[in-house]
Amino acid sequence: MAESMKGLKRSHRCTEVSNANIGEEVTVMGWVQKRRNLGSLIFVDLRDRSGLLQVVFDEDNVGSEGFEKAGSLRSEYVVAITGKVEKRSAAVNENMKTGDIEIIASSLRILSEAQTPPFPIEENSQTKDEIRLKYRYLDLRRPDIQRNLMLRSKVAYLMRDFMAKEGFIEIETPVLTKSTPEGARDYLVPSRVHPGSFYALPQSPQLFKQLLMCSGYDRYFQITKCFRDEDLRADRQPEFTQADMELSFVDEEDVMDVNERLLQYVFKEAIGVDIALPLPRMPWQEAMDRFGSDKPDTRFGMELIDVSQTVAGCGFGVFTGALENGGSVRAIVVPGQAGMPRKKIDKLVEYARGCGAKGLAYLGINEDGTYKSSFAKFMTEDELKALIEKTQANVGDLILFAADKNKIVWNVLGALRLELGKQLEMIDENQFNFLWVTQFPLLEWSDEEERFVAMHHPFTMPVEEDWEKVDDNPGAVRAKAYDIVLNGTELGGGSVRIHQDDIQEKMFEVLGFTKEQAWEQFGFLLNAFQYGVPPHAGLAYGLDRMVMHMVHADSIRDVIAFPKVKDASDLMSEAPGAVDEKQLEELGISVIQVKEEPSQE
Amino acid sequence: MAESMKGLKRSHRCTEVSNANIGEEVTVMGWVQKRRNLGSLIFVDLRDRSGLLQVVFDEDNVGSEGFEKAGSLRSEYVVAITGKVEKRSAAVNENMKTGDIEIIASSLRILSEAQTPPFPIEENSQTKDEIRLKYRYLDLRRPDIQRNLMLRSKVAYLMRDFMAKEGFIEIETPVLTKSTPEGARDYLVPSRVHPGSFYALPQSPQLFKQLLMCSGYDRYFQITKCFRDEDLRADRQPEFTQADMELSFVDEEDVMDVNERLLQYVFKEAIGVDIALPLPRMPWQEAMDRFGSDKPDTRFGMELIDVSQTVAGCGFGVFTGALENGGSVRAIVVPGQAGMPRKKIDKLVEYARGCGAKGLAYLGINEDGTYKSSFAKFMTEDELKALIEKTQANVGDLILFAADKNKIVWNVLGALRLELGKQLEMIDENQFNFLWVTQFPLLEWSDEEERFVAMHHPFTMPVEEDWEKVDDNPGAVRAKAYDIVLNGTELGGGSVRIHQDDIQEKMFEVLGFTKEQAWEQFGFLLNAFQYGVPPHAGLAYGLDRMVMHMVHADSIRDVIAFPKVKDASDLMSEAPGAVDEKQLEELGISVIQVKEEPSQE
Repeated sequence: MAESMKGLKRSHRCTEVSNANIGEEVTVMGWVQKRRNLGSLIFVDLRDRSGLLQVVFDEDNVGSEGFEKAGSLRSEYVVAITGKVEKRSAAVNENMKTGDIEIIASSLRILSEAQTPPFPIEENSQTKDEIRLKYRYLDLRRPDIQRNLMLRSKVAYLMRDFMAKEGFIEIETPVLTKSTPEGARDYLVPSRVHPGSFYALPQSPQLFKQLLMCSGYDRYFQITKCFRDEDLRADRQPEFTQADMELSFVDEEDVMDVNERLLQYVFKEAIGVDIALPLPRMPWQEAMDRFGSDKPDTRFGMELIDVSQTVAGCGFGVFTGALENGGSVRAIVVPGQAGMPRKKIDKLVEYARGCGAKGLAYLGINEDGTYKSSFAKFMTEDELKALIEKTQANVGDLILFAADKNKIVWNVLGALRLELGKQLEMIDENQFNFLWVTQFPLLEWSDEEERFVAMHHPFTMPVEEDWEKVDDNPGAVRAKAYDIVLNGTELGGGSVRIHQDDIQEKMFEVLGFTKEQAWEQFGFLLNAFQYGVPPHAGLAYGLDRMVMHMVHADSIRDVIAFPKVKDASDLMSEAPGAVDEKQLEELGISVIQVKEEPSQE
Repeated sequence: MAESMKGLKRSHRCTEVSNANIGEEVTVMGWVQKRRNLGSLIFVDLRDRSGLLQVVFDEDNVGSEGFEKAGSLRSEYVVAITGKVEKRSAAVNENMKTGDIEIIASSLRILSEAQTPPFPIEENSQTKDEIRLKYRYLDLRRPDIQRNLMLRSKVAYLMRDFMAKEGFIEIETPVLTKSTPEGARDYLVPSRVHPGSFYALPQSPQLFKQLLMCSGYDRYFQITKCFRDEDLRADRQPEFTQADMELSFVDEEDVMDVNERLLQYVFKEAIGVDIALPLPRMPWQEAMDRFGSDKPDTRFGMELIDVSQTVAGCGFGVFTGALENGGSVRAIVVPGQAGMPRKKIDKLVEYARGCGAKGLAYLGINEDGTYKSSFAKFMTEDELKALIEKTQANVGDLILFAADKNKIVWNVLGALRLELGKQLEMIDENQFNFLWVTQFPLLEWSDEEERFVAMHHPFTMPVEEDWEKVDDNPGAVRAKAYDIVLNGTELGGGSVRIHQDDIQEKMFEVLGFTKEQAWEQFGFLLNAFQYGVPPHAGLAYGLDRMVMHMVHADSIRDVIAFPKVKDASDLMSEAPGAVDEKQLEELGISVIQVKEEPSQE
């Protein structure tokens, strides 16, 4: 039997009561965290979103009926309690915000009874993900998840606050849009009014925000859902949230400036982290050369070293072969790991193969001056010495080498560096290292399509002085594109857009589009561009990912209220689900194939 | 040929330049509104989102090349201009914010040329909607639309600002959810991973926000898109924006209080309108009796008058017949319209028939004491006198009567009242009349389903003292539901929710649901309710509609950046559209029927 709260008014949330209220009568409402009977007293920890508060029931104050009711309380009952705030009679609890006070209850109402939950409502739950997500409404009661979602709300608010003050206008773009053939797979929505036609959910508001620049809105901002029907990874969700912006009459410096100040403001106000400005910048080429990654984690060293010149002409065919094929030989020096057991090294080799390497060469410099190496026998002592000198390795260090095409070498050593950085605890988790990676290549060769494709998108502006190379050496043209990287993760990215029709035409030509194809795909944007388009540039953040980093969450699901699992289903609502045949009839579609359900996780 | 803005930096938006800058050099960028050649001078009105600024080109200052370039400028070219601010030499333009100054250009760059737009970019366009929407990116350049969207952005910002300060947490709920059989038609999204299964786009976050209350978030807020696949009316869009909230441990007074202060804050800050608090309240029954509407426009009188008792036993069978059938006879007095021509009265009768009436009786009191009436001949002089006295009509007034079931009488006279209020210009368009309509009926009888259905939704709390009537007279039970009405439009609505399992069970019973049916439809919410649910209540606003009222827009499309037309298509992007057969194959669906396209508007 649930009692009504009629006539009652909550006076405080649990942790809003403090020793400043001693002697006052308060009314608090919340969930029973736990009840303990201690002699003639009953102790209840009451929980709401603010935290915990201890309530004491004794028969003298709450009466015999109230005392009996208190004795019936179980975890997760929802109650309203009125009582007097007193200094704690028993031991003060230092771990509790309200640990020096307690409420002496004078009345109790049970607003809602509760079954025993399938798992305890507490921080750092060890419960299996499947159970947590099936009972997400209970999982969401856990204080750590509540802190995450409250922080997320604050972050979104702070962003909007900053952007509004900088003259950005938040404009909503459509969710029911048109399917575009490029990019990831679209989620489709069948049209009832136009059977056989479909809307697509937007992968990003890219085209719309560029249109808004054509329309003179000058500074656009939006926090909005985007959708990609891709196979999910741990840090992906079918619907995710972008903080998206676009600016007119600006160059990349303007975009970086406003975003640096945005990040500084949000990180300071949300989690108290100071970010020194300006943020460091690194051209893409340097990021690849030094870190083997376009999103370097700069919280630790162990940078890549190009030893190609040093090993040129050496006796080890794997090295010289890679060079002859136009590749490179690069190394990382793992400090103090010369003694790494062979088994562990084998695992690293295996890991490297998983990243695309044919193998992994190693050279450990033992304390006694000898080497532990997979290739030392193919080299002269001088060649080895030169190699050690080049890598500046010390006695006791382990050097790992990859030799292949640049792309593979970067990928392998970049991944190994991160893996070993974690294993060897070289990373300070409390550091927030921001970095702009700039000057991405405009185009990259696609073996699959046998043509150059746009690395970012076809509207990305080339670096002016590189543009003349576009015919002879398209791969060497750099783009006015930039990513903002935090601790080895891409938080966001963007570019200056092409607003000049001659450059745009040439760009489509290089991408192998006929004029007709370009118009078919991007018709309404190209149309808009004919009527006066300002220079413009933009950037978009993955908001889920940003919050995830702020709270050091293990999974993106810990910062999303109702996330989906790997097969894109929601274990709580059981979406997606079956629908009535009548609904499909109205849409003019039919199901032609029902596969067996894959496993849920 | 588009020039680059390299090396240039905009110093001001157009109307940020003022007579305080006289003598300074500024750089402005924007669109050419118009160019006039006047003797040896060229005048250009430059436009950006802030407004217009006059630029003067003379050959002495801008050079011969620049002057020639200026001569080539056409409407909608995008330009960057550097020059000195001077006091206007010629006539000051009082209608222009920058009307007392001008820029004497020293340099000009053409950042983008433009074709002649299909319609002029100016306020209050008379262009056909189809053309405006096809070229929406140009339509969006119109200053009135820009003001609307900037105001909309501000309104959303102000709401969030207020809600954050009141302790509300903005939590994003899913867009890919599960289809529910009740309510409007869902938009469906086929699942690729689970062929034959579908997501639904949410009609509202109702279930999710109630879950968040079960999860202890205490105060939830969200501005979010909702979706309904209904046949569109002028003020409906397939996707629309809700400002949605839910609160725990509150009753309706708390919800109304926070919302009154929210409205006061937003209307004051956004459009400078003062709202006196508390807002007036009116029970649903009174609203129907006095205004024939659950969303009364209280900016003018002409209220409904129940004359049933007065006409009981009179000689006019239409009146007495209605009473015998359990209905009523009601009237509105149209001031000074006794002389309304018969043709116009006939039109009102026609209008009444369109609202469901069988007819419309009228009685005009001529200046000479005679009557113009459709029924006077069936009544005695005394009966007519009593009727006039009851309605307090004066000489020269026209009284209109409807006699039928209450529902029809209210509907007819409510609609006639609004129609005549507009025709006779009885409405002050500058007034903002807010009103809470409260105590809606909990249930209404559905002839179609032959059962009582929930007027709001099945989780709406009944008024406590009415609940005992639920078995004997379900239609008399009032709900703790409330709508907030502005000038005759429902801006938003909500209710206290049932949190007691016994009331909820009974409610489902009254609605004719078996326990199984209830669980099938609302399973995860009912599940959540088993684990401790707080008393909670909420409200949701239609944001599009609120902004529409603030700016007195004729169409909801004037406050949405990229709206859809009546057939739910987007004339600019041509969504919905065809998709590749391969996409459908991946989703395991096929198109079984392609109807002919209905007309686009």
